[in-house]
Amino acid sequence: MTKIAVLGYGTVGSGVVEVIQTNRDLINQKTGDSLEIKYILDLKEFPGSPIEKLIVHDFEEIVNDEEIKVVVEVMGGVEPAYTFVKRSLLAGKNVATSNKALVAKHGAELLAIAKEKNLNFLFEASVGGGIPIIRPLNTSLSADDIEEITGILNGTTNYMLSKMYHEDADYDAVLKEAQMMGYAERDPSADVDGHDACRKIAILSSLICGKQVEFEDIYAEGITDITLQDMQYAKAMGMKIKLLATCRKNGERLGAVVAPCLLGKKHPLYNVEDVFNAIFIKGNMLGDAMFYGSGAGKLPTASAVVADVIEAAKYPRQSMMTVWSEEKMVLEDKSERENRFFVRVKGTEALKEELEQTFGEITVIKPEGVEGEFGFVTSVMKEGDFERGAEKYPQIQKMLRVKE
Amino acid sequence: MTKIAVLGYGTVGSGVVEVIQTNRDLINQKTGDSLEIKYILDLKEFPGSPIEKLIVHDFEEIVNDEEIKVVVEVMGGVEPAYTFVKRSLLAGKNVATSNKALVAKHGAELLAIAKEKNLNFLFEASVGGGIPIIRPLNTSLSADDIEEITGILNGTTNYMLSKMYHEDADYDAVLKEAQMMGYAERDPSADVDGHDACRKIAILSSLICGKQVEFEDIYAEGITDITLQDMQYAKAMGMKIKLLATCRKNGERLGAVVAPCLLGKKHPLYNVEDVFNAIFIKGNMLGDAMFYGSGAGKLPTASAVVADVIEAAKYPRQSMMTVWSEEKMVLEDKSERENRFFVRVKGTEALKEELEQTFGEITVIKPEGVEGEFGFVTSVMKEGDFERGAEKYPQIQKMLRVKE
Repeated sequence: MTKIAVLGYGTVGSGVVEVIQTNRDLINQKTGDSLEIKYILDLKEFPGSPIEKLIVHDFEEIVNDEEIKVVVEVMGGVEPAYTFVKRSLLAGKNVATSNKALVAKHGAELLAIAKEKNLNFLFEASVGGGIPIIRPLNTSLSADDIEEITGILNGTTNYMLSKMYHEDADYDAVLKEAQMMGYAERDPSADVDGHDACRKIAILSSLICGKQVEFEDIYAEGITDITLQDMQYAKAMGMKIKLLATCRKNGERLGAVVAPCLLGKKHPLYNVEDVFNAIFIKGNMLGDAMFYGSGAGKLPTASAVVADVIEAAKYPRQSMMTVWSEEKMVLEDKSERENRFFVRVKGTEALKEELEQTFGEITVIKPEGVEGEFGFVTSVMKEGDFERGAEKYPQIQKMLRVKE
Repeated sequence: MTKIAVLGYGTVGSGVVEVIQTNRDLINQKTGDSLEIKYILDLKEFPGSPIEKLIVHDFEEIVNDEEIKVVVEVMGGVEPAYTFVKRSLLAGKNVATSNKALVAKHGAELLAIAKEKNLNFLFEASVGGGIPIIRPLNTSLSADDIEEITGILNGTTNYMLSKMYHEDADYDAVLKEAQMMGYAERDPSADVDGHDACRKIAILSSLICGKQVEFEDIYAEGITDITLQDMQYAKAMGMKIKLLATCRKNGERLGAVVAPCLLGKKHPLYNVEDVFNAIFIKGNMLGDAMFYGSGAGKLPTASAVVADVIEAAKYPRQSMMTVWSEEKMVLEDKSERENRFFVRVKGTEALKEELEQTFGEITVIKPEGVEGEFGFVTSVMKEGDFERGAEKYPQIQKMLRVKE
């Protein structure tokens, strides 16, 4: 029997309890062992609840109990999660976490401690919720040089963009709806400004280069400026607008960016709708692959956490090798990244010839019903060159990157 | 340094050599070890090739060499692969294979030997080529009760069905084209009759129920009867026809079938085109997930094999737990499986009322240009009931299952 402690009885924490209870027999069969939750750390009491007697308020009880072999950290936020996780590892306990803020900031250090102590620090649920991605990167794809990862890593914004596209509902209306459905927080900024996706792509970027990518270094643009007119242009081009978090190798360099992008029909991410997440991967041997599923939600996320707990219970004294050093990775400047750019311009098509002198040959896009402006897509160019060119045209009112 | 032997220098075998050579530094960094190919077993000589000196013709040289820690079996077919793999395991060597025929038939026994010997028998590449699926089922999804797996597991037939759908090319024309492109064999029966997909779903079925599912027990129907008129009906319904390999739990029972099915727009497999494969999974906690990628091809398949080799090299004396006993699983009879059924009927819509007495309320489907017949979809019913009903109508000329 492996005794575990759960830090935090919120959405994911209660999901962890539910997964372990619901699938108890199956988990026992698969592990040849059983999982027993001995403590749940929470500030609140839960009188009358079946877990009432497991609740403790003092982390010291957990860290000083030698019976506890696995600590599940599902509190969220950097502190006190960081202190608790670090102390758990130093006390010889394996840790599984769903906490992207913690992993993005301290993943390298915590992995180093785990390795030193021959323990596991596992964080499958920190990116993509229930979608297996961290472990596949470490195991199934270990023979590949991963050249690119592009993900739809935030369900809230994908839900909103899907609604805007399919139902012609404007940003404010879909945000209100997302809040009513419980998909968006009352303060939605972490989602709609791209910060949530940014922490997740920082983790994936660190894993594919083996060094520390700071999320603060990643250029992140949210969806707050996306309008129904942008959607009309997307439809006219047979494309969709998705909030994409990307990292891409360019020789020894690595570029990473989070931004709403135009995405063509043939891309595997094109059909990822509503709250679903998906992660596209390009390996130098594997070619293109994609993982799709529920990127958030109580049970999918808890399923990933419990799978980590099972792994830690099966191999309690063995550090899963993960190459992620604390050495800082300097990212390629976004001005160096090559893209095609979609641009909306005020005025008439008379501007076309002048624009072509700057942006190369262009095709004018004019969705039905849109007046007084038009759109076009540039040829492939560096973002810095695009920006310098765009400075000449005060008529330009919107730019979106095009993902091939 | 981990010394390995490769059995078979065909497409996948040469891919394994290429992956190890191309990504040597990366693999060394990830494993903290290096892989050295000491032998390649093949009947042929390869004079002038860089691997000429590695070629041996006698398996005894490999099995008796204590330096060899991992044997890679990429010969295909049941014999002599089975004998070689079994003897390798008994001699204390880890095995990685891409051989679906071997795994479908002898997987349970070979896993038992590996477990007994504290070795790994790994077969990620046997299903879905480069797509990670076997290891995720064993690890990332270990907290879930997997209720259903449905896959597009054969690239050749998916290529052909995509061409028929998008280019209105008929079966014979697309088969010829697939053969010219090297996607289909001169004798295409293993692909087009569904036998290849059947072995793969047998492996996945065994893994989700933990018992031996014999591929001979799985009802398998190929795509040889699919016509352009069927495609017209599919388009009229906003659906596609895909060769789906499915297994589904029904309480304690498990049903499995391979057949061309009508698939609606909202299903994650709907957009899987050309030679790509994808595997849809439903877990009781995870919900819906999908893995997408190259299901065949030299380098993607070899990438999966080498990832297995890396795992075996990292953990040479540890059996990855896989619950797959030799106890035979009795499958649910296909007459018990519930589905909606699409039916093509000769004659006029005057038949509608009569048909409704048997199949419940129906909507008539009549694609433009199709004369002298019509189509309809039944309500959800058991396949046995459908068949008994259909016996009354000699006008019925075609049935396809509908995948919701």
